[in-house]
Amino acid sequence: YYFFLCGGWVEARNSRGNVGLVPEDYIEVKNTLIICFVFDFTSLYRALDEIGTFSLFSSVYSFDEEWDDDSDDGKSTVGYGGSQMEEGGTMQRGGGHSTMKISLNKFPGFSKTPNPEVYLLTKSIAKGNDKLPIYAGEVGPVWLYPQIQLDCVVADPKKGSKMYGLKSYIEYQITPNTTNRPVNHRYKHFDWLYERLVEKFACALPIPCLPDKQVTGRFEEEFIQMRMERLQGWMSRMCRHPVISNSDVFQLFLNYRDEKEWKLGKRKTEKDEIVGVKIFSTIDPELPELDPGQVEQKYEMYSQFTRSMDNSVKELLAVGHLHWKRCTGPLQKEYRQIGKAFQNLSSVFNTSAYPSRKLDATGKTYEEIAELVAGQPKKDLHFLMETNNEYKGLLGCFPDTVAVHKAAIDKVKEADHLVTMNKVSQQDKHIMEKNLSTMSYALQAEMNHFHSNRIYDYNRLMQFYLEEQVKFYETIAEKLKKALGQYTTI
Amino acid sequence: YYFFLCGGWVEARNSRGNVGLVPEDYIEVKNTLIICFVFDFTSLYRALDEIGTFSLFSSVYSFDEEWDDDSDDGKSTVGYGGSQMEEGGTMQRGGGHSTMKISLNKFPGFSKTPNPEVYLLTKSIAKGNDKLPIYAGEVGPVWLYPQIQLDCVVADPKKGSKMYGLKSYIEYQITPNTTNRPVNHRYKHFDWLYERLVEKFACALPIPCLPDKQVTGRFEEEFIQMRMERLQGWMSRMCRHPVISNSDVFQLFLNYRDEKEWKLGKRKTEKDEIVGVKIFSTIDPELPELDPGQVEQKYEMYSQFTRSMDNSVKELLAVGHLHWKRCTGPLQKEYRQIGKAFQNLSSVFNTSAYPSRKLDATGKTYEEIAELVAGQPKKDLHFLMETNNEYKGLLGCFPDTVAVHKAAIDKVKEADHLVTMNKVSQQDKHIMEKNLSTMSYALQAEMNHFHSNRIYDYNRLMQFYLEEQVKFYETIAEKLKKALGQYTTI
Repeated sequence: YYFFLCGGWVEARNSRGNVGLVPEDYIEVKNTLIICFVFDFTSLYRALDEIGTFSLFSSVYSFDEEWDDDSDDGKSTVGYGGSQMEEGGTMQRGGGHSTMKISLNKFPGFSKTPNPEVYLLTKSIAKGNDKLPIYAGEVGPVWLYPQIQLDCVVADPKKGSKMYGLKSYIEYQITPNTTNRPVNHRYKHFDWLYERLVEKFACALPIPCLPDKQVTGRFEEEFIQMRMERLQGWMSRMCRHPVISNSDVFQLFLNYRDEKEWKLGKRKTEKDEIVGVKIFSTIDPELPELDPGQVEQKYEMYSQFTRSMDNSVKELLAVGHLHWKRCTGPLQKEYRQIGKAFQNLSSVFNTSAYPSRKLDATGKTYEEIAELVAGQPKKDLHFLMETNNEYKGLLGCFPDTVAVHKAAIDKVKEADHLVTMNKVSQQDKHIMEKNLSTMSYALQAEMNHFHSNRIYDYNRLMQFYLEEQVKFYETIAEKLKKALGQYTTI
Repeated sequence: YYFFLCGGWVEARNSRGNVGLVPEDYIEVKNTLIICFVFDFTSLYRALDEIGTFSLFSSVYSFDEEWDDDSDDGKSTVGYGGSQMEEGGTMQRGGGHSTMKISLNKFPGFSKTPNPEVYLLTKSIAKGNDKLPIYAGEVGPVWLYPQIQLDCVVADPKKGSKMYGLKSYIEYQITPNTTNRPVNHRYKHFDWLYERLVEKFACALPIPCLPDKQVTGRFEEEFIQMRMERLQGWMSRMCRHPVISNSDVFQLFLNYRDEKEWKLGKRKTEKDEIVGVKIFSTIDPELPELDPGQVEQKYEMYSQFTRSMDNSVKELLAVGHLHWKRCTGPLQKEYRQIGKAFQNLSSVFNTSAYPSRKLDATGKTYEEIAELVAGQPKKDLHFLMETNNEYKGLLGCFPDTVAVHKAAIDKVKEADHLVTMNKVSQQDKHIMEKNLSTMSYALQAEMNHFHSNRIYDYNRLMQFYLEEQVKFYETIAEKLKKALGQYTTI
């Protein structure tokens, strides 16, 4: 047996050699060899602990996790696979990634919340291009938004191969609206980008996970299409973020001109030192300092909001899932049965001396309704589910981001206490408070960004959903009216 | 314990004295006192045999079977309760009733098919008012239809009581369109009428059962309403039948002027001797005689048709029942959940600095849709189910009527054989063939009557059903459009 731990799902091979995905909860780990495709051993141990009956394992290996690919960039992959614990500073690179991913499903929080203390005592702020200003917008503190919003199209998935066809992979074409010049990327490159973004920004910005690796389509075509659709969603969301879209690593990903520029850029961004909580030192709010009380109030509000929205989104997903199953299952069957029953009765009537086509047409209409009912979820519920799934992912990242904030609030409270005991200077306390205020502005700007997207997304979603629903019911009414028309002509 | 046998349901009292209806199939009869409310002991023994483990019972009593009444006309009730076997002649009175009723549910056929031989050898036909002519209509042989179709309104159920309030009953007001003068009848009077119609006509005309005695409403009001609605359906069907509506007994039921006229009329009709197969001697087809081959062909066709239609009607009832349960059960629940999920998400959104009523309105719309979905079956499916239930009852009577016909065909074939052996005279054979032709015309007239009603009923039914369905889907589309309208105004 072997297992991949991946977003609540475990890829398992049974004794006959069949491979498939099974929900984590189904697994009871026996004493056996476990090959783990994770980058953070702390998380692994916690995961195994969570799973339950695990007691002993022989060896743990670390591999490249992309399913459709080998490690063509093996060195680089292994390069960020190590656990780089920097005391109270940057977030663990691989660790951050792996944990963030798992946190959406089962293991909340970073494996260890990054310690904001190093930043809180920082006196200087970054200069020049690295600076991330925050302005007073209409709705409160906001990031600096670009004049033209970046966007890109993910399209044209192509099978590529290397090593004389021995290894194959899928390459997607990404075309940004700025250059209109397509670049090609494999899923593992998206994954690399995600890693960089988490490493650099996740203390201040929730970075939504990449679409799951799990197979959602039954056929390769369907799977590729689905993954592409979701990568498009993820990229569009990243493009819409003023801080992320403007970052060097994101620009590199979209704009590199050749293999050389890509490789050089990769090496450079991997060496970036402004990562983890250090990101706050680049934030420059051009706004009056907030006192710790105001900061805590905002924190409480956002924390509460994101938790509540997470619950509501999950509720909607659950009922949407139920509805989908009912439409494509029992409801379709039932309308077919109704249609059949009318048609059968019509056949009987037609054996008499008084044949008629009316009832048969009614029966056929209900059969058509059965197919409309079964086909509808793909037309409207699909988009509702996809969008809410995206938000579920995004909201799953908030607890981590908010936890860093909470840790900073607690540090400042502690400092307040230490000042009265003369263990921290008034000056240091003021620096900490000022930096906490900056962190709060970052959180506020981020929340305002979240809300503006949320409003846009849900308006668009609901409008689309209701439009399709109206069309659906009108189409049925239209069909029934036509069936009815045959009777009124008696 | 005691049991009422009634249309597949058994009213049972348990050891704690609670009374309720249970399906026949659930009953395992133990050695105990059984009080049976049936009129035909043959049927009772067959029923008990069917039930299964029955082995011994102490006593059998016969009572008036009306649930909401004692035997105020006890003598008359008991009067037709006896088993009057006339060799090969009239149908058993009580026996015919009880069996016909049960035949719809479990025990097909008369307890014994009436023997048509007595009629087949009859030379004379009835004269005057008793004559039932058959004409050549556009569609084939037809009964003589009246200029103005009789109809009546069953309304205004009133609780009456007698014996100083010790016994209570429900009285319905029936107003025929001919006299426009209401008469009052209790359920037991309808039952008496049904008995008379079966006795007189059931060999030639399928007499649909009265609505079941079983309780369908949870409250007395609902039950009375439902029974009234079904009595109305039954009466309308009887009114529409040219032979039944014109009969003395039916006219008496609708037109009696006072208690005295009613009692006298009852006594007279109960003495009617033109019952059972003798009814055929009153039929006077003004059409060329049919040869036995043509007769058999018609018989086969009708027999096949009514059996097929019976199956189709049952199929439609089954799927209708399923659909009803889904609409009022899981589907309503699901739309409520969708509505709630939208409203909950809206509540969360409204805790932010960006409140909006749109999503809340969408949620409320889906809650309204939930109620529309749950309320719809009562609006359209109800009528579809009621009509098909009526037809199920009517079609359930055909096997009995058709069996008499089949027995006559067999008798004539036998006679054909006996002629060659000189055991039956050519003249008698010709009389038999002529009478069989008359029976066939009766069956054809009846089938043509059935078809014309069937076409009318199903056209009206489907038109009504589709109209309501169109309204239903249009109402939903309208509601969703309104909800959508809130979004398009952004």
